[in-house]
Amino acid sequence: MRHDSMRARNLAVVLGEIRDAGPLTRAALAERTGLTKTTVSKLVSDLLDAGVVAENGAVRDGERGRPGVAVRLSGHRVATLGLEINVDYLAVCVVDLTLAVRLRRTKWAGNRDSRPEHILGELRSLAESVVAEAEAAGLRISGAALAVPGPVEHGLLRTAPHLGWRDVRVADLLDLPFKVDDFEVDNEANLAALGELWFGSGARDFLYVSGEIGIGAGLVVDGSVFRGTYGLAGELGHVVVEPDGPACRCGGRGCLEVYAGQDALLGKVGSIPELVARLEAGDPAALAACDRAGRALGLALTSAVHLLDPGMIVLGGVFAPLFPWLEEPAGETLSTRLGQMRRTPPRLAVSAIGADAAILGAAGLVIQRVVADPARALGL
Amino acid sequence: MRHDSMRARNLAVVLGEIRDAGPLTRAALAERTGLTKTTVSKLVSDLLDAGVVAENGAVRDGERGRPGVAVRLSGHRVATLGLEINVDYLAVCVVDLTLAVRLRRTKWAGNRDSRPEHILGELRSLAESVVAEAEAAGLRISGAALAVPGPVEHGLLRTAPHLGWRDVRVADLLDLPFKVDDFEVDNEANLAALGELWFGSGARDFLYVSGEIGIGAGLVVDGSVFRGTYGLAGELGHVVVEPDGPACRCGGRGCLEVYAGQDALLGKVGSIPELVARLEAGDPAALAACDRAGRALGLALTSAVHLLDPGMIVLGGVFAPLFPWLEEPAGETLSTRLGQMRRTPPRLAVSAIGADAAILGAAGLVIQRVVADPARALGL
Repeated sequence: MRHDSMRARNLAVVLGEIRDAGPLTRAALAERTGLTKTTVSKLVSDLLDAGVVAENGAVRDGERGRPGVAVRLSGHRVATLGLEINVDYLAVCVVDLTLAVRLRRTKWAGNRDSRPEHILGELRSLAESVVAEAEAAGLRISGAALAVPGPVEHGLLRTAPHLGWRDVRVADLLDLPFKVDDFEVDNEANLAALGELWFGSGARDFLYVSGEIGIGAGLVVDGSVFRGTYGLAGELGHVVVEPDGPACRCGGRGCLEVYAGQDALLGKVGSIPELVARLEAGDPAALAACDRAGRALGLALTSAVHLLDPGMIVLGGVFAPLFPWLEEPAGETLSTRLGQMRRTPPRLAVSAIGADAAILGAAGLVIQRVVADPARALGL
Repeated sequence: MRHDSMRARNLAVVLGEIRDAGPLTRAALAERTGLTKTTVSKLVSDLLDAGVVAENGAVRDGERGRPGVAVRLSGHRVATLGLEINVDYLAVCVVDLTLAVRLRRTKWAGNRDSRPEHILGELRSLAESVVAEAEAAGLRISGAALAVPGPVEHGLLRTAPHLGWRDVRVADLLDLPFKVDDFEVDNEANLAALGELWFGSGARDFLYVSGEIGIGAGLVVDGSVFRGTYGLAGELGHVVVEPDGPACRCGGRGCLEVYAGQDALLGKVGSIPELVARLEAGDPAALAACDRAGRALGLALTSAVHLLDPGMIVLGGVFAPLFPWLEEPAGETLSTRLGQMRRTPPRLAVSAIGADAAILGAAGLVIQRVVADPARALGL
């Protein structure tokens, strides 16, 4: 191994230990990594200079009781950007190296049947103001990831039926206001699942169900997202609920989205908060829409549980505020339908991070990459 | 690393190279593995003694043209056993280290609503005679794996509705006629998918669909089986095709199995060969049953493609001989339903190994483990 790649690997090993087990003294780091104290000191010094780690006050070092200075991740310099294009909003957040959310901004917008250039221009403006604010606070943006409402294959947004986009190479059209080597575009549901993994309940095995205008899902097994062969897995919204049901925008019929997508839930109601208010007031039409959506969700989840075998099911996006009204019809359908194939059906839970899941997952993904290879990501 | 574990690792590295790129000379092995020629010679000598590899005649060694003796995998000594309990048969095969099938035996049996002890006794007898024959041919059985028609969680067969079994710890009940350290029980569809991977078309990304009395599926992504959280993924037979359809043995309703399982396909016809004869003769009832099954299969596969994103779909088991009559209704349903979510629907193909897929996958799985760690598997 050449010196540079050896050093890069050792930087990653030391930073990984600090992230997973810090604060740690240099002596403890040497012991845990098997590197010499001299090597550890040099690497820690480089990480301190780059603002990646910071020193704590003196701490007791293990059982022998000698005091030492411990290092921990620093949230003061390195940060990443999470971006989202949704059908009715754009969103941006900044997350620092400690996974603290430093800034978040949402801009409501009508993106249905829109031109990609126009929406990506709007997103750039939003990102520009957020990045300026982050930089004013001393942060440096090391990379970004963008969530889009449709399947992405090798950076190409294959289709986003509600935006009216097909085969859009999003990364080429988004001219970010800073130089990033690390820019990733992925399906909103995959990134939201990662958001739930890193910022949510702490579960490591679950199917995250993202209720939006469209419905997607991201399966996390032992802390990793299952992506299928081409990265197109998890399209729960187009699982067949009723073979002779109404036409879906995807070209199929009776897909889950037709019964439980945001449009079907809202009907003539103007917004999710308004729908929640009506549900709380006992409005029969609102209750019937949720019951119908919950049963359809239970049917699609029955097929999903049989095929994907998730540890639990987390409902997010607009399904989070509607959870009290979806839980019973969905859970009952699921437990009746799953029959004897499993001891118990997977538990239904509500996402604690709601609509922020996708931008948090996007920013978190880039943080993971920085920690996995700080030499490359930060030019150390 | 201790000497023993270092040697075990090196044995595996050398054997892996021979498997993947052999025949190879000792010099070529040293070059490819980075081990010294002395170490390689000692390891090859141990592998020769154990009958794991054999020497070819002199071959040219690369470009320099020096002749050398090359070693390759040997099929003469090490072998493994693949076993299957199906609803209407028991099957056993012996595969040698080169993945050549040396013996196979099927015993037709009515295993519906049977006692596990009885069936496992029958399987033991069948295995006994096959093992005796293999040993007479100079083979030594190094391990075995068993395919069962239902989901397996940590060695426990959770349920096999058509056998009438629930929560059976199969490994404890099967008293094999030889000592095996390596015995594995898995779902028939997972093992059949591995059979297709190692003995089939050579594809590395596909959903193997196993049509039997029940219907299962095994998803292979980049050469590995996706198992889900508890090993229960791929239960295609219980994907919901028609929410208000007939009751299924699993406790659900309108599952794929109700429309396309062997019982639904056969109706009053006695066997699959008889059904094929009727189809060839243009029998309207047989054609209608296949058309109905093919359309239901297409619907369930639509949901499976959206959730699992397979590279292609391989129909096996009883679906293999029926492929000419299933391909059109299933393929048409799939391409109509998948709509605009993908450029093209995954290709439908027929398994070339048919009913043997599960036993081949079972035996192949144990061969992979022998090659991955010959020191442990063979006591070298």
